[in-house]
Amino acid sequence: MPNSFGKLFTITTWGESHGPSVGVVIDGCPPRLPLTEAEIQTELDRRRPGQSDITTPRKEPDTVQFLAGIFEGRTTGAPLAMLVSNTDARPEAYTEMAGKFRPSHADYTYQAKFGHRDHRGGGRSSARETIGRVAAGAVARKLLHLAGKVEVRAFVTQVHDIAAPALPHFPSLAEVDANAVRCPHPESADRMIARIKQARSSGDSVGGVIECRVRGVPPGLGEPVFDRLEADLARAMLSLPATKGFEIGSGFAGSRLMGSQHNDTFENRDGVIRTTTNYSGGVQGGISNGEEIVFRVAFKPTATILQPQKTVDVHGADTELAARGRHDPCVLPRAVVIVEAMAALVLVDHWLRHSAQTQTFKF
Amino acid sequence: MPNSFGKLFTITTWGESHGPSVGVVIDGCPPRLPLTEAEIQTELDRRRPGQSDITTPRKEPDTVQFLAGIFEGRTTGAPLAMLVSNTDARPEAYTEMAGKFRPSHADYTYQAKFGHRDHRGGGRSSARETIGRVAAGAVARKLLHLAGKVEVRAFVTQVHDIAAPALPHFPSLAEVDANAVRCPHPESADRMIARIKQARSSGDSVGGVIECRVRGVPPGLGEPVFDRLEADLARAMLSLPATKGFEIGSGFAGSRLMGSQHNDTFENRDGVIRTTTNYSGGVQGGISNGEEIVFRVAFKPTATILQPQKTVDVHGADTELAARGRHDPCVLPRAVVIVEAMAALVLVDHWLRHSAQTQTFKF
Amino acid sequence: MPNSFGKLFTITTWGESHGPSVGVVIDGCPPRLPLTEAEIQTELDRRRPGQSDITTPRKEPDTVQFLAGIFEGRTTGAPLAMLVSNTDARPEAYTEMAGKFRPSHADYTYQAKFGHRDHRGGGRSSARETIGRVAAGAVARKLLHLAGKVEVRAFVTQVHDIAAPALPHFPSLAEVDANAVRCPHPESADRMIARIKQARSSGDSVGGVIECRVRGVPPGLGEPVFDRLEADLARAMLSLPATKGFEIGSGFAGSRLMGSQHNDTFENRDGVIRTTTNYSGGVQGGISNGEEIVFRVAFKPTATILQPQKTVDVHGADTELAARGRHDPCVLPRAVVIVEAMAALVLVDHWLRHSAQTQTFKF
Amino acid sequence: MPNSFGKLFTITTWGESHGPSVGVVIDGCPPRLPLTEAEIQTELDRRRPGQSDITTPRKEPDTVQFLAGIFEGRTTGAPLAMLVSNTDARPEAYTEMAGKFRPSHADYTYQAKFGHRDHRGGGRSSARETIGRVAAGAVARKLLHLAGKVEVRAFVTQVHDIAAPALPHFPSLAEVDANAVRCPHPESADRMIARIKQARSSGDSVGGVIECRVRGVPPGLGEPVFDRLEADLARAMLSLPATKGFEIGSGFAGSRLMGSQHNDTFENRDGVIRTTTNYSGGVQGGISNGEEIVFRVAFKPTATILQPQKTVDVHGADTELAARGRHDPCVLPRAVVIVEAMAALVLVDHWLRHSAQTQTFKF
Repeated sequence: MPNSFGKLFTITTWGESHGPSVGVVIDGCPPRLPLTEAEIQTELDRRRPGQSDITTPRKEPDTVQFLAGIFEGRTTGAPLAMLVSNTDARPEAYTEMAGKFRPSHADYTYQAKFGHRDHRGGGRSSARETIGRVAAGAVARKLLHLAGKVEVRAFVTQVHDIAAPALPHFPSLAEVDANAVRCPHPESADRMIARIKQARSSGDSVGGVIECRVRGVPPGLGEPVFDRLEADLARAMLSLPATKGFEIGSGFAGSRLMGSQHNDTFENRDGVIRTTTNYSGGVQGGISNGEEIVFRVAFKPTATILQPQKTVDVHGADTELAARGRHDPCVLPRAVVIVEAMAALVLVDHWLRHSAQTQTFKF
Repeated sequence: MPNSFGKLFTITTWGESHGPSVGVVIDGCPPRLPLTEAEIQTELDRRRPGQSDITTPRKEPDTVQFLAGIFEGRTTGAPLAMLVSNTDARPEAYTEMAGKFRPSHADYTYQAKFGHRDHRGGGRSSARETIGRVAAGAVARKLLHLAGKVEVRAFVTQVHDIAAPALPHFPSLAEVDANAVRCPHPESADRMIARIKQARSSGDSVGGVIECRVRGVPPGLGEPVFDRLEADLARAMLSLPATKGFEIGSGFAGSRLMGSQHNDTFENRDGVIRTTTNYSGGVQGGISNGEEIVFRVAFKPTATILQPQKTVDVHGADTELAARGRHDPCVLPRAVVIVEAMAALVLVDHWLRHSAQTQTFKF
Repeated sequence: MPNSFGKLFTITTWGESHGPSVGVVIDGCPPRLPLTEAEIQTELDRRRPGQSDITTPRKEPDTVQFLAGIFEGRTTGAPLAMLVSNTDARPEAYTEMAGKFRPSHADYTYQAKFGHRDHRGGGRSSARETIGRVAAGAVARKLLHLAGKVEVRAFVTQVHDIAAPALPHFPSLAEVDANAVRCPHPESADRMIARIKQARSSGDSVGGVIECRVRGVPPGLGEPVFDRLEADLARAMLSLPATKGFEIGSGFAGSRLMGSQHNDTFENRDGVIRTTTNYSGGVQGGISNGEEIVFRVAFKPTATILQPQKTVDVHGADTELAARGRHDPCVLPRAVVIVEAMAALVLVDHWLRHSAQTQTFKF
Repeated sequence: MPNSFGKLFTITTWGESHGPSVGVVIDGCPPRLPLTEAEIQTELDRRRPGQSDITTPRKEPDTVQFLAGIFEGRTTGAPLAMLVSNTDARPEAYTEMAGKFRPSHADYTYQAKFGHRDHRGGGRSSARETIGRVAAGAVARKLLHLAGKVEVRAFVTQVHDIAAPALPHFPSLAEVDANAVRCPHPESADRMIARIKQARSSGDSVGGVIECRVRGVPPGLGEPVFDRLEADLARAMLSLPATKGFEIGSGFAGSRLMGSQHNDTFENRDGVIRTTTNYSGGVQGGISNGEEIVFRVAFKPTATILQPQKTVDVHGADTELAARGRHDPCVLPRAVVIVEAMAALVLVDHWLRHSAQTQTFKF
């Protein structure tokens, strides 16, 4: 089930960039959760194209509607299905893509794997597929919030070679959404926005790094040995378009420390077992330890650029491609919302699994 | 099923560091594969403790035996079960660990999650659990080799702050295994070995980075949108003890390039569609594109160090711990084999899945 | 994932009786399959309410629309999503059900499990949920037909105490659909129809037995030990509303034979290994043997009857219920189509699994 | 994962009739459950061959040993692995089976599916595979007992054409195990035993029906729409060797009743919502309703008979087979234990799933 994610809180997404709609089914949602389309819409609006002058100009309201699973304003325990219609599809803008493979896109591999492909806007490989993830993630976030005031906050920490300084605090949503690039360090944000505009004006694109922090997670979430919390977070993040890397806690930089520097010593802080430092990133042995969960995701520069590029056509002949179509010169500002959604989905799923194994039968 | 991995070629591992045995069941192995215990043993010997003067002195032959699933030297299609007995268990060496949580180990989180824990040598959280992975990985590697001369080769590319230069070629097994640290760049290897010995002599430990390359994989493996090939590789790697990061192709560094630099243009090379560069790391849109698959995994410094550390006991009282027990001052030389095993398991599983969906019914 | 079925050809259904819509997502459909909404509609029309004078008078066109997964008339390998709107919902007809539990319906158990329930027409427990199964089953049947001329044919063999004689041949679709009750033995069909009308006129209901036969299945489908072909067929059938029993081949009657009578001896018939008899029902050791697959499913009488019945209200107080709402006095004529759909789904899934394990790597 | 069963309490079995061992891994067992090998052994002894003069004379102590997952007498939350060695293997007794297909066994289908087969005693298709199920079932039964005094009791209700009268009460274990055939109606038991001996003396075999009842299950277990409780019970039972049918509650006979006869009216009994009758068999809409769960399983006569039978050899040539080897002339007395084990496994798995979805997050 390559289009499903989660073992107990399972989402299944469908839809292509220029087909009639995109959507998601959640199977396993706890019953009686109060839920409105407006709550889902709030998150979709944060992901929506055209929300600022550094995102794609594609105009889509991305209005969500419940198809099933809600009764009298609450979830029922039955599948919760949600749909968003595609309203600004312009398949004619993609005619050239029908015959040529765009570099560093999924055109060639989809063709190689499936024998044909919906080339319109990338079809299934388009990031429009993530709408279903964000809609489901909104449900997961509400569950986490009600369960224990768990907050999931992602933000942009690097665009191209502009890296914001390490953030000393857990940022508020307002801080993150205060600027178009969603970097809670205003000076860096200004530079990042300028860099993105500069890339766009030269028909080029940039990538960067998103950091995500989660606070309020109790100790115990994560299922060794294969379904370690960080393993499922890594899978979730690498399942997003344009991602090339994941690191938790100290990450790659931690590999340059000595054990005596890197170990997080335990201490009793106000009657609670805590770690003095958090190189572990909130996870030890694959299980949350109650500290803040901190991870980072690397995104490559957007593959769609407006400069002519060498490539081959579907018959394998060398040719050149001048990309058209609307696109984001940098995906990170909108991807922040998607990273949060995936993190929330992982956490809810693990919360349910942990509860099942350790809370059902007690000895 | 947190102790199972893979959807069609599924392994389930069991066992603790100081219990009677560790083992693995493979469910879904193709039938009629010729297989001997000696072939499995070859890989286990590469993972075995005590194989060099920079690994743990624990003496374990790690001799594998088939429990089921082989008939007349071939797999039968039934579960293939393999067992390795623990022969050098010294639980008395770990008495102090019963009452105290070792920093940056899984002691505290296992206790928090499960309510008690097998503290002897880390119990289930010990890297001895990976024996089952390596045994199963040996089967996967044989399948890959027979299927298409696919080769999976991991090697150490960084230890502490000593980074080997980028390797210009696909290294042979002999090159990798030529030195104790498994770095195919001899000068770097010498320095890495010295650094590891230095760490050990000061009761400290070091981490590093392993790179893995796979060649011979045909285009088409990987199942968007959630079971992208890189997503499953990331999950596989982050499911290993001591890992903190994963990156594929250009990885984190790629996030600092412009799209015009980063895009892998296509070209027709001798009648085959190839990319001129390989920033993608062999995967595009979650599907292999026929190029070399290249990824890197970050390992933290070994958590067990012989210096006294602050911690708390199981009652939450502040205390101090002086670690004992045999351990690796750097896990990377042995982890190379485990990374290869996990990569092979991911690839075989995806090979089977790809074949099922696209080769069973043809139109 | 309680609302998903199948491991490689996976369907996920959603929707309630009186919600906005019902639908299904197929994940894992082979790519390039030519497919039209009209082909799906043909099967939905056979399931549709109001198709004859012995089914519910609810008027629903049950028009299917593709939401995603089709490009230029062929499947793409991406999720295939299909939706049917509910157009004749009359929730006001079910007001009494909001406060009382209908006997032998799911009202009480849904309330007990989920804490509340969509009482309108049974909500998720309504047989309208099976629309998604039939739509997905139509795709599965096309795959089976193209793959090997496999035919799946179910028919009514018993209504109340009227049992048709054993059918000596594999019936054509025309024979089955020749009468409203879908029994290919015309004399029995007449009596069954009369019995159903008699039950309805007295405000009562009847059950019966459906037989299903499948021909053209090659030897080899089925995955011991737990995913035996008959085990998955049994699960599929008992997952249908109103089913109380399943038997394959000789079934319960076979338990009264001696081994010497019951064993299916092998013979070489025209160069092919065949069995002389078929008490096994086409499956041995959980794997198809190339003979006709034959199974039967028992359905209870429809729980909705128009006679007053004792029951309790949602507060547990004894009360009486006079059912209203439109219903089938006998579900079997329409259930024939659903049984066929589920059988086809099981077979396609096992075909893919068998192919993956035994055809991908050959030795 | 065809050799795994259960979503949260997952068992994976391995082993062949004449290989070195059979075993099972339980993944997802709740931690801290007190457990001894002796408790497992008790159930294995009830399944053991040679326990009476109507079972196979094969002598196997079937002694279980824990391989992993227990610490200080309690489960740890890690995989619980158990092994039973095969000690009385006599592969030479099966030489003829290497070249010929035994009628109504799995010889032909395994050969057709896998391309070769372990012919010794049926290899993986032997009922020795169920040892792992019984061992795991013993753990499940203990969980059910501790959780809510849930009792699972199966017994033989029919052998050949000898049917015991409907049992008016829930039988005790002592009543069931009071005679060799495990039928709690002594007069019927005597006749059944005589019939089995008669069949054996004529080199023939008989089948029959096992009934299983479960009391103490709370309302709410079962996951519509596909993982209905009866669907998973049906799958579990049809996954057992030699089974041909499953029915729950009124079953096939219920299909001959009118709705007004068959409906289970609700009543308030001592403040609890109960049904007056139990045609539903304890399950409504796929979910337990708190009444006794009652189902029956049909077993065919043992395929191994000592009379000469026609068959074909592995080259497809007609030949004759005179079976040898030790076998049960009737599998039912020992299968009682296996039916109980599978029922317990289904219930524990559903208990965990129900708890996860409805008890983790409350609104």
